[in-house]
Amino acid sequence: MSRVPRLHIQGDFASGDVTLDADTAHRLRNVLRLAAGDAVQIFNAASGEFAATLIELSKSRGVARLDARLREPGRDTGPWLVAAAIKRGPLDTLVEKAVELGVGEIHPIVTERTNVERVNVARLDAIAVSAAEQCERIDPPAIAAPVTLREKLANWPRDRRILLCAEAGMSIPLAQALAGLDFAAPWAIMVGPEGGFAPAELEMLAAHPLVTGVGLGPTILRADTAALAALAAFQFASPRGRISPRAL
Amino acid sequence: MSRVPRLHIQGDFASGDVTLDADTAHRLRNVLRLAAGDAVQIFNAASGEFAATLIELSKSRGVARLDARLREPGRDTGPWLVAAAIKRGPLDTLVEKAVELGVGEIHPIVTERTNVERVNVARLDAIAVSAAEQCERIDPPAIAAPVTLREKLANWPRDRRILLCAEAGMSIPLAQALAGLDFAAPWAIMVGPEGGFAPAELEMLAAHPLVTGVGLGPTILRADTAALAALAAFQFASPRGRISPRAL
Repeated sequence: MSRVPRLHIQGDFASGDVTLDADTAHRLRNVLRLAAGDAVQIFNAASGEFAATLIELSKSRGVARLDARLREPGRDTGPWLVAAAIKRGPLDTLVEKAVELGVGEIHPIVTERTNVERVNVARLDAIAVSAAEQCERIDPPAIAAPVTLREKLANWPRDRRILLCAEAGMSIPLAQALAGLDFAAPWAIMVGPEGGFAPAELEMLAAHPLVTGVGLGPTILRADTAALAALAAFQFASPRGRISPRAL
Repeated sequence: MSRVPRLHIQGDFASGDVTLDADTAHRLRNVLRLAAGDAVQIFNAASGEFAATLIELSKSRGVARLDARLREPGRDTGPWLVAAAIKRGPLDTLVEKAVELGVGEIHPIVTERTNVERVNVARLDAIAVSAAEQCERIDPPAIAAPVTLREKLANWPRDRRILLCAEAGMSIPLAQALAGLDFAAPWAIMVGPEGGFAPAELEMLAAHPLVTGVGLGPTILRADTAALAALAAFQFASPRGRISPRAL
């Protein structure tokens, strides 16, 4: 609709003019069809979000004058998503929707049964930025470089607990886990690859002191469905899920 | 993995031999690489689910002998999804994941701001069947023919209440609505098109006695994200979300 375009622009700004690089200028002119005089919103997690006016827009650069601060700097504290790498199409969609659903960071992992060769982190970063612009988040979440499950757990923060979406075995229903959850603590949601975790991986996870296995109902969910469903349920159960979109 | 292929086969069967048509025979031979003697599972909502053995498999037909009943006939009573038509790719994904998340029926609608010309119901039916086979549901949900929002409401069942995923305005947080929900009653989840419902449509919906507006958190969700997130939250909050996948 006629919403003002939101642009995620790197840098530290608070007032005055912000210079836009050639790529951004191209996008504003040729994709968004804007010209000098048009309104935009400029944001990043460190500087906040500003109403701005394009005062110059050429092929090679643009300049936006900051008019008023709309939002303070900030960062969402949503759960991390730790997900076995999946095929490019579903992974792109997963990243887009995870950003919408308030994910804090995205950590692709490689497991025994992961059959995806390569994860293009730069591509996922661009998708995360675009999703943040669209969904009105102020902070595109970071995408971590893919590592194996073992490496991920070896370097895991000591205070971040893990909800493991488990296909079977020792788990409690997700709703039950969420009902008693300490949302002020850091959390992660972990999902395996399409074929599930291997037995040795499941043993390692079951023995991990930070891991709680959660069940996602009676059907066998695809990996990306499980990730999105768990992120959605987490967000709606958390205080964040009770906030309305700001009026624009 | 090495799960036994599940086949949704139309018909009324309880024991004996089930004849498989040429399309199914082709799929078994050429896609699933099966041969006579291999195990399959055959199911539909009216007959239940059976362990079966292929006793004949040629180019033109197959025969499966039913060995034992694994599940009774049944139908999921999950919420209907009433969703404005969206582009083909996201719609395909939405149908697949809605089936996994227990949707009862899928009702595409046309709203003022819907800019999709055509919905291929036969295609969506095939996706729903395939998703049911994969996710171990016994009943592929029906896909209704698309009609306008007005027609849908004019022919709406009198006892089916609607959770309207509302972008703004008079709504309560989804978690709050789900906390007090009567899951024994029939429900539907409704989502608008990418541009949202038009003001006249929102007025009509707000005035409808069966409609409750629900908010989905602080971000602006895409239409398909909103539908999946609401379906997931509904399922996990319902008694169905506490059921584990059956051991296979």
